[in-house]
Amino acid sequence: MRRLPADEGSQAAGRVADVRRRNLSLVLDRIAARDPLAPAPSRALIAAETGLTKASVSSLVADLLAAGLLTEVGLSRDGERGRPGVGLALNDGLGVLGLEINVDYLAAGVVDLTGRVRIQVVEERINSGRGPEEVLRDLSDLSARVLSRAGQDGLRVLAAGLAVPGLVDAESAVVLDAPNLGWSRTPLDLAPLMPPGGRGATVALSNEANSAALAELWYGHGPTLRAYLFISGEVGVGGGLVFNGELFLGPGGHAGEVGHVVVTEEGSMCSCGGRGCLETVAGQEAVFAAAGTAGSTPAEKMERLLTALGGGDPAAEAAVARAGHYLGIAAASSARLVDISAVVLGGYFSRLGPWLLPALRASLATHAPRLLDTADVVLSELPQTAALMGAAGSCIRDVLANPQELMEQPPGAASAGA
Amino acid sequence: MRRLPADEGSQAAGRVADVRRRNLSLVLDRIAARDPLAPAPSRALIAAETGLTKASVSSLVADLLAAGLLTEVGLSRDGERGRPGVGLALNDGLGVLGLEINVDYLAAGVVDLTGRVRIQVVEERINSGRGPEEVLRDLSDLSARVLSRAGQDGLRVLAAGLAVPGLVDAESAVVLDAPNLGWSRTPLDLAPLMPPGGRGATVALSNEANSAALAELWYGHGPTLRAYLFISGEVGVGGGLVFNGELFLGPGGHAGEVGHVVVTEEGSMCSCGGRGCLETVAGQEAVFAAAGTAGSTPAEKMERLLTALGGGDPAAEAAVARAGHYLGIAAASSARLVDISAVVLGGYFSRLGPWLLPALRASLATHAPRLLDTADVVLSELPQTAALMGAAGSCIRDVLANPQELMEQPPGAASAGA
Repeated sequence: MRRLPADEGSQAAGRVADVRRRNLSLVLDRIAARDPLAPAPSRALIAAETGLTKASVSSLVADLLAAGLLTEVGLSRDGERGRPGVGLALNDGLGVLGLEINVDYLAAGVVDLTGRVRIQVVEERINSGRGPEEVLRDLSDLSARVLSRAGQDGLRVLAAGLAVPGLVDAESAVVLDAPNLGWSRTPLDLAPLMPPGGRGATVALSNEANSAALAELWYGHGPTLRAYLFISGEVGVGGGLVFNGELFLGPGGHAGEVGHVVVTEEGSMCSCGGRGCLETVAGQEAVFAAAGTAGSTPAEKMERLLTALGGGDPAAEAAVARAGHYLGIAAASSARLVDISAVVLGGYFSRLGPWLLPALRASLATHAPRLLDTADVVLSELPQTAALMGAAGSCIRDVLANPQELMEQPPGAASAGA
Repeated sequence: MRRLPADEGSQAAGRVADVRRRNLSLVLDRIAARDPLAPAPSRALIAAETGLTKASVSSLVADLLAAGLLTEVGLSRDGERGRPGVGLALNDGLGVLGLEINVDYLAAGVVDLTGRVRIQVVEERINSGRGPEEVLRDLSDLSARVLSRAGQDGLRVLAAGLAVPGLVDAESAVVLDAPNLGWSRTPLDLAPLMPPGGRGATVALSNEANSAALAELWYGHGPTLRAYLFISGEVGVGGGLVFNGELFLGPGGHAGEVGHVVVTEEGSMCSCGGRGCLETVAGQEAVFAAAGTAGSTPAEKMERLLTALGGGDPAAEAAVARAGHYLGIAAASSARLVDISAVVLGGYFSRLGPWLLPALRASLATHAPRLLDTADVVLSELPQTAALMGAAGSCIRDVLANPQELMEQPPGAASAGA
């Protein structure tokens, strides 16, 4: 088949556009990767760091300023030499909506392009056994309140991500299996959750432990750890594997489910249908039950458990130590199977650190002594809403990697709320 | 810095050489991937399949014939149309030396380029506690016998690979940790094992379970399985993860160590220093002990165990069922952590299949019922020397991917033994 010259012309134009797209993203990346305590970088410094010419950087920055992705932040002197330049920063007037459905709460928030959580609302709500329509309606109400506050604060919301406690098919927005919610092969109608004027076609759906593991990578301990297993304690126990700065999803897309590693062969039934999974002994309900902690809501039980631990209550201490023991077994098994060099404990585990870690370390000493010598075991310092931050963070990464999508929006949309 | 025209000339020459190298490998790959039952492909068919011109294929094939990598195998008619062409096949007069050190045997063999094991010698030898010099001397003797027979058979041996039961640093030829041999941070002097006239600088060192997992991929069930955990039963229990046709080594290079997944928290001490690892309950010595099987060598014990099982001996059946139970727990944990869709049992496990599999399946039904529905559990049909085949197979793949290295050898070496 003969190729028409017109085709060749549009192919060449396509290649030029590709190069510009990559360069826009490269410039944004240099600005985003900047230590927030360092002075904002100038065009000249970005040129030096990226290898692009100063003229190219000026042109790219002009487009990014026009699209509203960057702001100029006053004079900045890069090092000792050279004249001071205008500093550039991500526009923190742009943000992304992060949403989370968990077994015992709903959460919504706005994270700005620099990664700061600007608005956040968490509402206790027992969602297990409720249908998706009902839960999504509540989440939609919560989201509307958050977006309204964002509008008052002059924040423009570009996109949205939703984290749920289960295995998902992100492409088709289906929750494949969320046993603690009672959802299986459940399609979600996410359109009502899209922020008005948001970019992209839909809300990005993710697994909450994977999202929290990514939040740890971007906003927590991640940068200092080479290969870690993130273990998230909630009603369920979720997990995410991060290797060399990337989430490892495995050959089928659902790796990292450490909550269903078998840690006690004579254990009780798990929500997954199995027996003796980590979740059955380290999920928060299992720990509350073992500690004899009463309360009308999980949050209340959690406060009472912490009070009991603070007061040296033996039943509470034993219950948490037991969870730590089994976390150690799961960590030992995981380390040998996927060769991680660190474990990060998130969710409610991070609040139990002082009582959990000694038992976890003792368990590693018994079951994998060499791992104890070489691996880091650290507590996440992110808030309960790490999954929300990760779900939003994925969208922010997407915006920064594809800035031209924002530029291609009609000027009205691009300036709305700015 | 000004670049000299001479540099540009040699760079351009380098690019031409790269293209030719890739095309040589492409042609070899088409011939190697051929179903052995189908007629040998002609130059015309290879041209059609690769998109190269017939003239290019003829020139590439001429070089590969001259280097001795291919042979012409008589007339072949590709489909109905066109005149019959000369068929092309890998030269099965070329082979690779595969070597294995295991805890209770040494093995050496020659695998030809088509993947057939042409010579193989296994010698029982208790290597645990022996020093590497002594073991390598014995292996060198065994290897010399195998190479001598290869010479008599007109086989030219191009390279060598050695598999050992432990974690290795292949680059520096160091056994990092082989607890069942008692070797730790042990450098191996592999030079004496290089076949005379072999290509490459050294013998390729690998982990035996990883090599056996690759043998399964290339010569066993692998092509039909998307993502599997290979579990190898020996004195130790090794493992290898294969995802989408590639070995997954994990972020630190040592993933897949399923033998040290903790399956019984009250279990006994493992060679790794831990407690309750799969190896402590499913390694062959553990099963012999539980079954009360006596014998002067592991091979003798194995025959007696099989005899006892065949005769319905309850202690033998219970011992093997116990191993199957714990294999099921390890498989359940592995499946959730890395999202495999199949388990392949190799080494001595494959001989115990009829007694092992029912208990393994019952264990999956208890601990991961959904996995039982979706995952394949299959027995390897490869011989005991799968690791040797995998170690040789890696070298064969290397030869086929870099045929020009063989062509660059002096003509004397290239024609020796051909």
